[in-house]
Amino acid sequence: MASVSKSYLDLVDACDSFPYNDPSNPHHADPYAQFYTFYLPSDPRPHGYLLPATVAAMPWTEEFTVDHEHKTITLNPTLTSTAAFTHLIDNAITCNTFKLLHGEHSEPYPVIGARVPVSLERYAAPLFGIVSRGAHLTVYTRGGVGGKGEGEGEMKIWVPRRSKHLFTYPDCLDTTVAGGVTAGEGPFECVVREAGEEASLDEGVVREDAKSVGCLSYISHKDAPGDSEKGLFSPELIYCFDLEVAPDVVCKQCDDEVKEFYLMGVQEVKRALQRGEFKTNSACVMIDFFIRHGVVTPEDEKDYPEIMARLHRRLPFPTSSDQ
Amino acid sequence: MASVSKSYLDLVDACDSFPYNDPSNPHHADPYAQFYTFYLPSDPRPHGYLLPATVAAMPWTEEFTVDHEHKTITLNPTLTSTAAFTHLIDNAITCNTFKLLHGEHSEPYPVIGARVPVSLERYAAPLFGIVSRGAHLTVYTRGGVGGKGEGEGEMKIWVPRRSKHLFTYPDCLDTTVAGGVTAGEGPFECVVREAGEEASLDEGVVREDAKSVGCLSYISHKDAPGDSEKGLFSPELIYCFDLEVAPDVVCKQCDDEVKEFYLMGVQEVKRALQRGEFKTNSACVMIDFFIRHGVVTPEDEKDYPEIMARLHRRLPFPTSSDQ
Repeated sequence: MASVSKSYLDLVDACDSFPYNDPSNPHHADPYAQFYTFYLPSDPRPHGYLLPATVAAMPWTEEFTVDHEHKTITLNPTLTSTAAFTHLIDNAITCNTFKLLHGEHSEPYPVIGARVPVSLERYAAPLFGIVSRGAHLTVYTRGGVGGKGEGEGEMKIWVPRRSKHLFTYPDCLDTTVAGGVTAGEGPFECVVREAGEEASLDEGVVREDAKSVGCLSYISHKDAPGDSEKGLFSPELIYCFDLEVAPDVVCKQCDDEVKEFYLMGVQEVKRALQRGEFKTNSACVMIDFFIRHGVVTPEDEKDYPEIMARLHRRLPFPTSSDQ
Repeated sequence: MASVSKSYLDLVDACDSFPYNDPSNPHHADPYAQFYTFYLPSDPRPHGYLLPATVAAMPWTEEFTVDHEHKTITLNPTLTSTAAFTHLIDNAITCNTFKLLHGEHSEPYPVIGARVPVSLERYAAPLFGIVSRGAHLTVYTRGGVGGKGEGEGEMKIWVPRRSKHLFTYPDCLDTTVAGGVTAGEGPFECVVREAGEEASLDEGVVREDAKSVGCLSYISHKDAPGDSEKGLFSPELIYCFDLEVAPDVVCKQCDDEVKEFYLMGVQEVKRALQRGEFKTNSACVMIDFFIRHGVVTPEDEKDYPEIMARLHRRLPFPTSSDQ
């Protein structure tokens, strides 16, 4: 069977798949026009976008005002906004309204940029078009065979394969360690926690040597096979960390989310990317890693500036309380 | 005299100063509506935006079609587009039409993304709103006093002060090495050349150890004091490189663009940034360096995602010939 080799831009495009408002085309359709805009109490800044189909299906409670004329959803002033979300999502789970809720509860995700802390369940965030946050840690070593001195060997990267039973991206390759940043947790604490849970890495090593190296942002148009709701507006932020380890450090699975870990050379990772074997957003984290480490350069990659811009899309929401 | 300490977002905002088309505000004025769009022969993709004042002042030749009704400027099919630009810009220099041309010729800059190679003079690029490209190399060392082992000392960065006689940003601090990427030259060759010319760095060291680490993109609204034309649309791409050197490597000026070099600690650089001492785009390169090296983290910087997105703005033009 012939398979088409994916370019890095193809891989980024699969993740950052929501259309841009292109100023070069004055006749473009505004891709935001279809949505209902989501507002928090006493805050004129939008925090999410909902599809009309989602608005129609949602078992709204009296804690939310739905305005069909102006296409807005506003959370009413209430004692705690988080409780209002919980109430609403409990209803949706009970009624089995949305397949992506999987009929179960998940971790609390904060609405970033909110002036008063508010959170909702992780699985529900894309229904509201609210920003989801993840943290990814890429673990690599240079100390292997073929090195010309300490820290100068050929780079190898620890790459896990996801378990077959996972809801999303079963059997795909992934970033060494990745997880959702839950409410009240910072990105660094998230990778420290996940590095132990997913890769059996020593907490002390991660705390001492994991380095914050940037963040990616993109907007997915959730239309991929396997997604239960089509056309959702799903903005995501991924905080990226690198961890260079000694050659004797080994990543190994310790929960049932990872099938096994491989120590892969750069060429092996490149081929796996081209074959589309990585989870969509983890492919982007790997491309960003390659760019930051000089593996992918502007001389070799004609789409270099476009890739960099698409990996760092400006989200149409405030990401801090005073923006 | 009281001085206001600048945040990292303030510094990025000073560079990426052209307004965004904000989808959250349906009543926003389209910031692109005022411009004339620039087209190359047989290519429907826009490559630049010109102010009406620039269009009115430009001594157009018959090689360009100016359409006031549709607000377009089109380079006519011609034997060589570069010659047509040269002809036009020669006219403008002779007539002293634009102050920013400084009455003199500069290096050829390519129109990136063009299907047939075409270049125009560096100083003229912002008049047409065409993408300018620069390459910046940050040279640093970790081998100094206070280290806990090889490669683990306190990070220090080589920072030059620009000469007082320069047209732009006289007396400001700057990236270790920076220059415009001229037509026919790659970003890496540009930094190799400039590293010798500006910082007396050994070509072999730069070729061996300078590492490509990404690119920044932004759109300046050229309105700063010292700019001779107001309100120009100036998109820029900066290719970034890092070079870690041994403690005995010294950067020293060898042309008249640099006054002197300092070896500055991270805290010193931070304070100089806060005081606004850096050239506008070099401040952004320094902030990106701090983010990639874990000096600025999401835990400490509330505007982290916004800064990352603004440093990697998607430009409204193709950056490769097949986009």
